[in-house]
Amino acid sequence: MTGTISLPQGLSCPLPHAAIERVQLGHGSGGKLSAELLGDHFLPHFSNPVLDQLGDAAVLALGAGEVAISTDSFVVTPLEFPGGNIGALAVHGSLNDVAMMGAVPRYLTAGFIIEEGLPFAVLDRIVVAMAAAAAEAGVTIVTGDTKVVERGKADGLYINTTAIGTLERSFRPAPHRATVGDAILVTGPLASHGMAIMAVREGLAFEAEIESDSACVSPLVERLRAALGERVHVLRDPTRGGVASALNEIAETAGVGIELDEQALPIPGPVAAACEMLGLDPLYVANEGVVIVIVPEGVADQAIAALRAHPLGVGATRIGRICGAHPGMVTMRTGIGGTRVVNMLPGDQLPRIC
Amino acid sequence: MTGTISLPQGLSCPLPHAAIERVQLGHGSGGKLSAELLGDHFLPHFSNPVLDQLGDAAVLALGAGEVAISTDSFVVTPLEFPGGNIGALAVHGSLNDVAMMGAVPRYLTAGFIIEEGLPFAVLDRIVVAMAAAAAEAGVTIVTGDTKVVERGKADGLYINTTAIGTLERSFRPAPHRATVGDAILVTGPLASHGMAIMAVREGLAFEAEIESDSACVSPLVERLRAALGERVHVLRDPTRGGVASALNEIAETAGVGIELDEQALPIPGPVAAACEMLGLDPLYVANEGVVIVIVPEGVADQAIAALRAHPLGVGATRIGRICGAHPGMVTMRTGIGGTRVVNMLPGDQLPRIC
Repeated sequence: MTGTISLPQGLSCPLPHAAIERVQLGHGSGGKLSAELLGDHFLPHFSNPVLDQLGDAAVLALGAGEVAISTDSFVVTPLEFPGGNIGALAVHGSLNDVAMMGAVPRYLTAGFIIEEGLPFAVLDRIVVAMAAAAAEAGVTIVTGDTKVVERGKADGLYINTTAIGTLERSFRPAPHRATVGDAILVTGPLASHGMAIMAVREGLAFEAEIESDSACVSPLVERLRAALGERVHVLRDPTRGGVASALNEIAETAGVGIELDEQALPIPGPVAAACEMLGLDPLYVANEGVVIVIVPEGVADQAIAALRAHPLGVGATRIGRICGAHPGMVTMRTGIGGTRVVNMLPGDQLPRIC
Repeated sequence: MTGTISLPQGLSCPLPHAAIERVQLGHGSGGKLSAELLGDHFLPHFSNPVLDQLGDAAVLALGAGEVAISTDSFVVTPLEFPGGNIGALAVHGSLNDVAMMGAVPRYLTAGFIIEEGLPFAVLDRIVVAMAAAAAEAGVTIVTGDTKVVERGKADGLYINTTAIGTLERSFRPAPHRATVGDAILVTGPLASHGMAIMAVREGLAFEAEIESDSACVSPLVERLRAALGERVHVLRDPTRGGVASALNEIAETAGVGIELDEQALPIPGPVAAACEMLGLDPLYVANEGVVIVIVPEGVADQAIAALRAHPLGVGATRIGRICGAHPGMVTMRTGIGGTRVVNMLPGDQLPRIC
């Protein structure tokens, strides 16, 4: 779409700014404006041989083995936050879900529900971040869809992504494989994503800005696979609901107990301060670039060393163990020597975090 | 979730109706309420061995051949309309996209963005319709995701679906294969979906209610494949933007001209009346259970016979031809003997139709 209407020579009639700088309802009509939205704002960034065919569907050869597939809708508000935006997050989130199955992420689809009036400048930054995140992860965005809804609906932008990854028979971490005696590790500091979002929303100012940890964790998974193979029992990304919810699900699925050490939890100072200020428990706050890793205690140090060899995993550390006592339940040894139960949250701690 | 709070014997305290009959923000938190939303309102309807594992991702064996994959977000308003609802539409829409590549649809993912306050009664009807549509198409919903956004954001419900279908080498219809001399068919009456939605929105009352044609068209594709194989040059579902937009895209992609016969277009009487009343051109109105089929003229009658043997295709008919004149352009012989150009729409005819 150009910024001027053709007129007899010597005259010019710039379109009103609102008409050219923001998404309009017509961009979702399936007509010429839709084609322009695609051609001007998506294809230049996402271009690849599969997507560029623009068929009703993308055609892929996935090979004879099994694949892992995961879908996620992202409704985070605000759209842009320290350490990332909804676009990068939508790529990382779905890729991480297939990585947690032990798969190597390969392909991604993207569906955009755009609010009328979203500035193209914002959309472009988000699309560029998505493209960069996909490229960094070595993943191709093979097909997509755009819809436009009226002003006031959709908070600017919602994004759905579906990720496909390829699996090998010899590497199948799964929650039910958590075994009594296993060590529980995390690959880095906790609660950064959720608190980065909350700090922006609540207008909190700290000396050190809290940045989202949003990242594709595949390189960490690859290192664990190379170092330990089948001895990696469980991988889980503690997103919505945080470490507490993820561990409760693992305890229930595997029928084991889980003991955490409060003093071992890597909560960065500014994150801990923000949590305290807002009355939030960091164990329930979302992470978007951290993995819970469960391995036999005998190889835990080896796992930590493998993780620390990658920049994303320098903060890798032990936070607890799988135990035979209280199956299905997560408990925590507190800093003052007591023990408390870490429940699933009944309702909502932080809405619209991812 | 139960409808009462436990109190000492003899007392009872029913929860307010709003709390138990409608989706709450907490249902999107990733905690206990999220698990209940899933367990009470999705899993009972979608249950299958892959989905029931509830991992971070689903694991599938797709075979060694190629697959077609397509994603689509559905934002139709109203959520329920004559002939269907957003749930069935979200299944049909994505399955049809992979069917247009010649693929047999196999698997589906589903992402739900639910507005706080959506009555569970409505959600349940939509989920039941999705499950029925998937079952009828022989497709499994293998993984999904739910998010909840605040009241006023999302018009009740948005649904994203991603479909995966398996492809055979010997059946690859594609827009660029449209060839001068080919016949252009449609498999049934046009413009029913869009006008069913518009009639509800505008409160139009006709003697005969207009019903959406929303349907999975795979059985029609299967019959064409069996009857004609590689001689099926192009399949295309004329959804958003209607027949006019789909044919313009085909003309441009294949570098051919297209001639339509206005009098051959199968527009049902009530649909034509509604279009006239609202000043809409049925060629631009969305269809959700119709296919544009392009085959060599010599086998066109055979294709029509194959289509008419299935209930979805009884209205199959010829509407035009591929010509060498005016490449990239669609024209129409009008009822009064003239010829007019059928353009891509520049902007918006009907928003929020799918």
